[in-house]
Amino acid sequence: MPDRLGPPRETPLFKRITLIGLGLIGSSIARAVRHLKLAGTLVAADASPAVIARVSELGLADIATTDVAEAVTDADLVILCVPVGAYAEVAATIAPRLKPGAIVSDVGSVKAAAIAQLSPHIPPGVHLVPAHPVAGTEHSGPDAGFATLFIDRWSILTPTDDTDPAAVNAVRGFWRALGSNVEVMTAQHHDLVLAITSHVPHLIAYNIVGTAADLEEVTQSEVIKFSAGGFRDFTRIAASDPTMWRDVFLNNKEAVLEMLGRFNEDLAALQRAIRWGDGQTLFDLFTRTRAIRRNIIAVGQETPEPDFGRRRGEDSTGQ
Amino acid sequence: MPDRLGPPRETPLFKRITLIGLGLIGSSIARAVRHLKLAGTLVAADASPAVIARVSELGLADIATTDVAEAVTDADLVILCVPVGAYAEVAATIAPRLKPGAIVSDVGSVKAAAIAQLSPHIPPGVHLVPAHPVAGTEHSGPDAGFATLFIDRWSILTPTDDTDPAAVNAVRGFWRALGSNVEVMTAQHHDLVLAITSHVPHLIAYNIVGTAADLEEVTQSEVIKFSAGGFRDFTRIAASDPTMWRDVFLNNKEAVLEMLGRFNEDLAALQRAIRWGDGQTLFDLFTRTRAIRRNIIAVGQETPEPDFGRRRGEDSTGQ
Repeated sequence: MPDRLGPPRETPLFKRITLIGLGLIGSSIARAVRHLKLAGTLVAADASPAVIARVSELGLADIATTDVAEAVTDADLVILCVPVGAYAEVAATIAPRLKPGAIVSDVGSVKAAAIAQLSPHIPPGVHLVPAHPVAGTEHSGPDAGFATLFIDRWSILTPTDDTDPAAVNAVRGFWRALGSNVEVMTAQHHDLVLAITSHVPHLIAYNIVGTAADLEEVTQSEVIKFSAGGFRDFTRIAASDPTMWRDVFLNNKEAVLEMLGRFNEDLAALQRAIRWGDGQTLFDLFTRTRAIRRNIIAVGQETPEPDFGRRRGEDSTGQ
Repeated sequence: MPDRLGPPRETPLFKRITLIGLGLIGSSIARAVRHLKLAGTLVAADASPAVIARVSELGLADIATTDVAEAVTDADLVILCVPVGAYAEVAATIAPRLKPGAIVSDVGSVKAAAIAQLSPHIPPGVHLVPAHPVAGTEHSGPDAGFATLFIDRWSILTPTDDTDPAAVNAVRGFWRALGSNVEVMTAQHHDLVLAITSHVPHLIAYNIVGTAADLEEVTQSEVIKFSAGGFRDFTRIAASDPTMWRDVFLNNKEAVLEMLGRFNEDLAALQRAIRWGDGQTLFDLFTRTRAIRRNIIAVGQETPEPDFGRRRGEDSTGQ
């Protein structure tokens, strides 16, 4: 799987790009935009003075400022990279300064709520093209980003029926330049798909780590020592940014509850199979799930190397 | 974290070691034993001719045979590395050939059931020292093993009150030689600890991958494409060996159902928090679980590198 960005462009894709929020995703975009020279001028805005100080130290943008309204002045592309819970406030702040023809996009993990919170503030002549790059790690903040984060991942665009096709194409070109594949779907369908591929997995990972923390028969030290048996992989997911994920669940309630209902039904059936000693039901499911893993590897969304904290490449015995 | 085995020993720990079952764990032990010269003679036995043919090709043992009874003749240490469901049959097969003073151990993920199935067959003068190295990957078979699998992992020994302490010490020394830490506890406590750190995590991973496979509103292609959002990590766990895991759930029923009950209670509370828009409850849990992750990294059971299928080391832009 390719893991390098291409060479810098001779002419930028946008004269001026403004990123609002320089966390993991925002700072990864900044690094890639700088490396590829996708912007004539790259502006980084964040309400946190500490984040902006760090962005300046790291040299992630041409201009770094805590003045979010000023930051969007004259921008051709504005990308919100803040938790969804902050969208309405940010949109109200920047709306008066957006220039006609500007594109406003975002990277949020929920899209119907994103549109509901942004669109009332978007002035006529400004194009809203909601986007969600399906990529990330469990780390947060401007130091956590890296320029290759989006390579071979999928970015989903969820324009509405009346979005200007030229604006959609411009955002598509932006994500392709970052190495991402692009798919267009409705916000509603996005929210349903991501509920099962991302939101519910995060919820149950958070949940089991919490359950383990509350046990009285098993010590925390034991949970931690013996985590290599599977639990460890859940703690990785359960270390993801709390604010971002709170906002995801509050803003994709219906789809998450629907998918969680199905998960619970299926889990009840497995629980019953265990109680009654029905080995065939267990074996059949466990065999079926292996095939899905193979498909994920086949389409390049994962490598086949084993990883339970120990990789074959680390085997120094030559055997 | 050290990832290399030490130099070979000048004198072996055991004159003759027999491994029964050359899958991921058995073949990893074989590789480490060969590299470290822990056995005067290493015998590999597996009921499958195909596995034994592969073991011979790979040169994993001094003797490789499908005759499991013959394989244990004169062995000082016999380690069962087969699914727990096969224990009783294997024990009955080898019992008449075990020599006085021999140690029989295993690597099974459940321990009370392992003792219940093995001990009736163990002849007087032979020592049963059940063990469980908490290490593994999602791959199976003799090609999947590697010698460094156990380094810095924990191996749990679950002797009974009347087990010969010298035999326990010998097995402890064996696992230490493979780079593992060793802890001794009762089989009952082991089964409870592993239910939460390993068995329930596997069950819910299998379950959500199954749920996703059965959705009619979301295509398989979508589940696979957008798996980078969290789902992918579950598919890794849900690709683990079906036979082994069926046997785990059938043989640790009470502890798994107990821990699953608590998981379900906690999940119901989270579900309610989402339904009622209780962001504080979500945020508090998500913050608490981050601390557990930090502890797992602090004690060396994981590295801090982010891994949602994309590592910082792959960032070739120098940013």
